[in-house]
Amino acid sequence: MNNSAAAEGIDAFKSAFRRHAAGVAVVTSLAPDGHPVGFTATSLASLAAVPPLATFNMAQVSSSWPAITLGNRVAIHMLGPRSRHLAELMAAAHDLRFIGDHWHADDGGLPLLNGATAIAIGHIVDVHPVHNNAIVVVEIDNGILGEEDEALLYHERAYMRPHPLEG
Amino acid sequence: MNNSAAAEGIDAFKSAFRRHAAGVAVVTSLAPDGHPVGFTATSLASLAAVPPLATFNMAQVSSSWPAITLGNRVAIHMLGPRSRHLAELMAAAHDLRFIGDHWHADDGGLPLLNGATAIAIGHIVDVHPVHNNAIVVVEIDNGILGEEDEALLYHERAYMRPHPLEG
Repeated sequence: MNNSAAAEGIDAFKSAFRRHAAGVAVVTSLAPDGHPVGFTATSLASLAAVPPLATFNMAQVSSSWPAITLGNRVAIHMLGPRSRHLAELMAAAHDLRFIGDHWHADDGGLPLLNGATAIAIGHIVDVHPVHNNAIVVVEIDNGILGEEDEALLYHERAYMRPHPLEG
Repeated sequence: MNNSAAAEGIDAFKSAFRRHAAGVAVVTSLAPDGHPVGFTATSLASLAAVPPLATFNMAQVSSSWPAITLGNRVAIHMLGPRSRHLAELMAAAHDLRFIGDHWHADDGGLPLLNGATAIAIGHIVDVHPVHNNAIVVVEIDNGILGEEDEALLYHERAYMRPHPLEG
């Protein structure tokens, strides 16, 4: 593929995704060195309900990448407008993400954020590398339901919430 | 894992995803037998911008599955509230999805739906089976920009649109 064909693909990709909205989640885990890691994900998707499998995509240069090993536990946090600060924090400088009292560790050391609308806790069953990125498959084992709130969206570089089509 | 532990995972998965909103897209392709296929996807995600890669998840029992082969072309349609009927149609009975004048075939026979806000056209570079499902990776080659509209969401079993957090 020549350069102009490659540029055409990149432009088409960006133009299309600009018109797509995504739900916002935060994925956390414990790295082998004992440090909590986490990041804001707009790629969270359901893969199957039985067994309960979810996927997310990430870059292998991510500060959370060392924790992404088969069998390691992860916590997938669903967010709402009231927990938008968690999405912002977990997308900011990685060395600041766990400074503060906005989280606690569960019995196994897994970092759980306070204020999520729901947390699905599972273990990594598949890591599928693609170029410098990876698709991660998590099987959900249990969960915690938080306070009810609307769902948090990311669209056109802004956080948003869903609204009925009529009205 | 015993039955009650498995049920706990399924419950946690469902409760969490109920609080997550997703963007809506329609994926179309041409099956080896020459028939157009397509389905509504709420799992579309960006994997990388360079090269431009997108992922979606699907069941291997899907009527579109025969088209999901390495190198085959696919069209990823971004939808808006005005093209919500396409999302409904492409999630309804599969033998009715291409009856009507809501689509046309491009030079290569790829079915393109009329009314999408954007179409990203690419080819399948990876199919990663997981249980009875699969993660599909598409490299975007080019695209078509449609009429501007808001983004279409699916949340709490209803189609919705994004709304600013303030107001």
